[in-house]
Amino acid sequence: MEALTKTVNGFDQGAIAQVVTTLQENPDIGNFELRATNKWIDAGHNRSYIQGFYGAGQEDTSRTEPFIYDNDEPPVLLGANKGANPGEVLLHGLAGCMTTAMVLLAAARGIEIGTVSSKVEGDIDIKGFLGLNATGAKGFSQIRVSFNITGVDDKQKEELLSLAKQSPLFNSLIYPTDVQVGIE
Amino acid sequence: MEALTKTVNGFDQGAIAQVVTTLQENPDIGNFELRATNKWIDAGHNRSYIQGFYGAGQEDTSRTEPFIYDNDEPPVLLGANKGANPGEVLLHGLAGCMTTAMVLLAAARGIEIGTVSSKVEGDIDIKGFLGLNATGAKGFSQIRVSFNITGVDDKQKEELLSLAKQSPLFNSLIYPTDVQVGIE
Repeated sequence: MEALTKTVNGFDQGAIAQVVTTLQENPDIGNFELRATNKWIDAGHNRSYIQGFYGAGQEDTSRTEPFIYDNDEPPVLLGANKGANPGEVLLHGLAGCMTTAMVLLAAARGIEIGTVSSKVEGDIDIKGFLGLNATGAKGFSQIRVSFNITGVDDKQKEELLSLAKQSPLFNSLIYPTDVQVGIE
Repeated sequence: MEALTKTVNGFDQGAIAQVVTTLQENPDIGNFELRATNKWIDAGHNRSYIQGFYGAGQEDTSRTEPFIYDNDEPPVLLGANKGANPGEVLLHGLAGCMTTAMVLLAAARGIEIGTVSSKVEGDIDIKGFLGLNATGAKGFSQIRVSFNITGVDDKQKEELLSLAKQSPLFNSLIYPTDVQVGIE
């Protein structure tokens, strides 16, 4: 009798093991190209379209329609709140990426988690962006991610934090990332 | 007769000048704390709530309801496409931040832009996240941002690219960012 595949944290452990085996046999299929397109609408309001990507050795066709997300600014930053501002969008992505890293890698280890929530805060001096501060710093000076996790003990919570730090977005922020900018 | 305030790229030039003057007189009001909260739902699906922030010297109350955005993964990454994945969310925020930096700082300089659109691609090896690659790199190895801009000449396009690079998200990526992670 074969072992039953177990679902942990919403993930099929057998499916995770299969991904790992496939990547070990064929490392190239781990290379993904993610994409977004964006159109400026007016002032601080612009809109992104996200649909296709390359990954697992092929163009993905699983999405029949694009995800459409708007960026805007609040009135104090001369916008009309038609979407979160891009800094907040980054915090949303970071929280999600760290959470998924945590729960997926925990599932691979057989750690069942009750609940996970997080608060993310990011400090930014907008004078940097406007070229008005002394240091010249333009990005976030600090981002703080605070997790609330239930269903595991304190030792496991520490292990889960270390798994969350495997997150691609976390690593893209704490280390310098090569960003090339050009005209089409 | 007073000078009329002119709208450029959707921004009131007088309002931009007022922000700059206010920041020069009172530099502390440039300090913003942006925030997001996030709840894990199941597997790679989680949801962020974005509403309040501190900035311009006070708690912002301009949003009567939160922005709610979902992260998920595509099936090839063991998800159900209930939202873009966090890597794509980052590209969305980056495109928006660079676009807003460009059009706002251009407005301050009196450069009227016709249209702006952009394509963003990000390379990522998911073996890094899973601890399976030789280099240990877990984040984006490269991100490429390509702008299409109309209504300005080639020299102005180069100037606009340099303004886009003032973007807080761009700078948060190209330089190491301090990200603190803890348990609530």
